[in-house]
Amino acid sequence: METNLSFVQFRPAFGDKDLNLENAVKLLKQAKQGIIVLPELFSTGYTFTSKKEAAELAEEAPKGKTCRRVVELSGKMRSTLIAGFAEKSSSKVFNSALVASRGEFLGVYRKAHLFYKEKLWFSQGDTGFRIFDTKDGKVGVIICFDWIYPEATRILAVAGAEVIAHPANLVLPGLAQKGMCVRSLENRIFTITANRVGRETRGEDSFRFTGRSQIVSPKMKVLVKASSTETVVKSVAVDLSEARKKAITRLNDLMAERRVDLYGVLTQLSG
Amino acid sequence: METNLSFVQFRPAFGDKDLNLENAVKLLKQAKQGIIVLPELFSTGYTFTSKKEAAELAEEAPKGKTCRRVVELSGKMRSTLIAGFAEKSSSKVFNSALVASRGEFLGVYRKAHLFYKEKLWFSQGDTGFRIFDTKDGKVGVIICFDWIYPEATRILAVAGAEVIAHPANLVLPGLAQKGMCVRSLENRIFTITANRVGRETRGEDSFRFTGRSQIVSPKMKVLVKASSTETVVKSVAVDLSEARKKAITRLNDLMAERRVDLYGVLTQLSG
Repeated sequence: METNLSFVQFRPAFGDKDLNLENAVKLLKQAKQGIIVLPELFSTGYTFTSKKEAAELAEEAPKGKTCRRVVELSGKMRSTLIAGFAEKSSSKVFNSALVASRGEFLGVYRKAHLFYKEKLWFSQGDTGFRIFDTKDGKVGVIICFDWIYPEATRILAVAGAEVIAHPANLVLPGLAQKGMCVRSLENRIFTITANRVGRETRGEDSFRFTGRSQIVSPKMKVLVKASSTETVVKSVAVDLSEARKKAITRLNDLMAERRVDLYGVLTQLSG
Repeated sequence: METNLSFVQFRPAFGDKDLNLENAVKLLKQAKQGIIVLPELFSTGYTFTSKKEAAELAEEAPKGKTCRRVVELSGKMRSTLIAGFAEKSSSKVFNSALVASRGEFLGVYRKAHLFYKEKLWFSQGDTGFRIFDTKDGKVGVIICFDWIYPEATRILAVAGAEVIAHPANLVLPGLAQKGMCVRSLENRIFTITANRVGRETRGEDSFRFTGRSQIVSPKMKVLVKASSTETVVKSVAVDLSEARKKAITRLNDLMAERRVDLYGVLTQLSG
């Protein structure tokens, strides 16, 4: 069975949710029905200058504007959408991604590994790494910098993810793209990195976001990718059952042969 | 402080330990004093055809011929040598690597994740992943296919490894090299992959080993590499303290920020 995987790569305008949602809606019309990933913090922009500012732009899930609009779109498009947004929950603000499938709000993932000043505006994610079992496939979510922690994607693969949705606002050129290729291969899963483009200069920070969104196969083939500057939607049809085949040779099953008897140190902090 | 890291890439002759040791000794003369890695099963060759054959070529550590010679060389060279060999221990045979430093036998690592027919000749490694704290640096060892399991290198990095010695007999072109680059980056450590070259055709198997040995920095720079066919020794001087710097930004410490509170699933088998 074929499933279309897509990313939306564009340039959010800082703080202008209505404009960002409008632009995202236009772009989503070019995506094929299936699993579609939007960038991290796509409706607010990235470069906050205070905790107060982040809190003011954040919204509750699923009743906030971004959430409602994405859930509605997922219904119209008969698709599964994964989109990064700033989430307010009681007194906390999280760098989250929502998962909406065919008109239904399925939940959020809250970023576990915060990068740089995100640590000043956001609380550490408390959801853990979750599988969203949708009609379009089993989706796991990580956000941007989570990629460098092999544990994040691994946990999702162990739990049965076929696809990792990876909304991102990457600033370093190419590292995460190479990393996500290896994440696909070492777990034999599809990965969709949806990165943003453009520059944001606010307060003392100026970030250039590096695009190069990509979709990678379980055998580490880059199926589609974007340039470092273009606004673009790309889709590719895949067979998700490829992500359930963990045989490396006729004698090796990649996931079943994990030596969990030797892995205890992974749940300990560094010396 | 500078430390030289080296790999020896060559073509072992199947079953001819004396010749392989003699060739290794000649090549080692070209390596600089420091940490030097030889390929997996460097003294026996790779393509066994029976469990009996593997057992006959295997030796006890440290009293077997390969071990004694490598320990002696490590003394003469005032260096730390890591070398793959077939290890006999009571009734079992392991695909192991020995670590010898400045004339002293430090111990063995027994390969945890066996590839293809290795599962027929060898027992699963039972040493776990160990740090060898030498005068040349803190060395962790993985063997060949272990690379695809992020857990292996991660455990060693968590335990304080500055360098991963990676003796290999790789047959797939380039996958492990890309993987080991990401292993260096995600753990901020040096990695030395010492792969063999040449073809071995024995029984029903014919393997072409793909060379391309490499040494990678904690920032994923390939410092030196070999071609897919040459017999060669390459060395590079590095500052191992680079591997102890885990700061990614002024607000991020890569290893300290592992979310061990969320990683429990890693010690569980796949669904």
